[in-house]
Amino acid sequence: MAAGTERKILVAVDEGEESTYALSWCLKNVVTENSKDILILLYAIPPRAVYTGLDGTGYLFSSDILATMERYSNRVAECVTEKAKRVCKEVNDVKVETKVEHGDPRDVICQVAEKLGVDVVVMGSHGYGLIKRAFLGSVSNHCAQNLKCPVLIVKRPKSTNVSNS
Amino acid sequence: MAAGTERKILVAVDEGEESTYALSWCLKNVVTENSKDILILLYAIPPRAVYTGLDGTGYLFSSDILATMERYSNRVAECVTEKAKRVCKEVNDVKVETKVEHGDPRDVICQVAEKLGVDVVVMGSHGYGLIKRAFLGSVSNHCAQNLKCPVLIVKRPKSTNVSNS
Repeated sequence: MAAGTERKILVAVDEGEESTYALSWCLKNVVTENSKDILILLYAIPPRAVYTGLDGTGYLFSSDILATMERYSNRVAECVTEKAKRVCKEVNDVKVETKVEHGDPRDVICQVAEKLGVDVVVMGSHGYGLIKRAFLGSVSNHCAQNLKCPVLIVKRPKSTNVSNS
Repeated sequence: MAAGTERKILVAVDEGEESTYALSWCLKNVVTENSKDILILLYAIPPRAVYTGLDGTGYLFSSDILATMERYSNRVAECVTEKAKRVCKEVNDVKVETKVEHGDPRDVICQVAEKLGVDVVVMGSHGYGLIKRAFLGSVSNHCAQNLKCPVLIVKRPKSTNVSNS
């Protein structure tokens, strides 16, 4: 039934292994073979606020450091989306688009999902790392509550290796 | 890819339209045709604590009333699971099992999912009604945080009718 319709599946990707696992799970379990599905791989570059102090006082960075941080962010974004594209090719040769946006992942995911009118959002449950999560709050939690479309939250089994899952 | 493997898909059903929508969405988008998937429809009969006062003081019911309440609960459970089975037959003739358990839906869903080793849990985002939710807290929220397997939370679009979705 799903095979006949063209679905837009938004997968939130980040640096973590769990997002890779979520993507693989989605490719194996949601994307049907020979489907017309479009997979949109979305990476959000978290705002600089993430790097400010826990006490709310921000650090002042020189423009050099800021430029370096920006270059670093962009390289991470490229690396993450390239890796995700490779996973898609390996598992299921589906039509893939990538999207990189600046902003709080929670907002970015909800906004992009709404704007593109996607059919489902797929994400890991602990995205954006442990440290960042302390600042950002749980991304999956926020999205499950605020997205209007179905949300698939994939937790990576502790004992499972991504390669043989 | 998914078609070859036998997956256990647990769908939490309740009295609400949203759970019917979640089930339909799952049948259309996750269950592939000619698959070996087993759909387990789970209904949790909420504990009697749900009917106690907001201030924590419980009511004392006569055994007559308790027996009537129990009969009512069982009839609701039957009605909900029968309706869910009909939806499955209409949309996708998949192998279906039903399961009715007593207890807080949050615990029941997590326990059954773990015990059966299901591959994914599907649920609406606002199950178990508005009043009950005040007592129970959000079921989907709890499950997304505590389940070890992937969770698909399906929100019912406000403008969509279940029959033509």
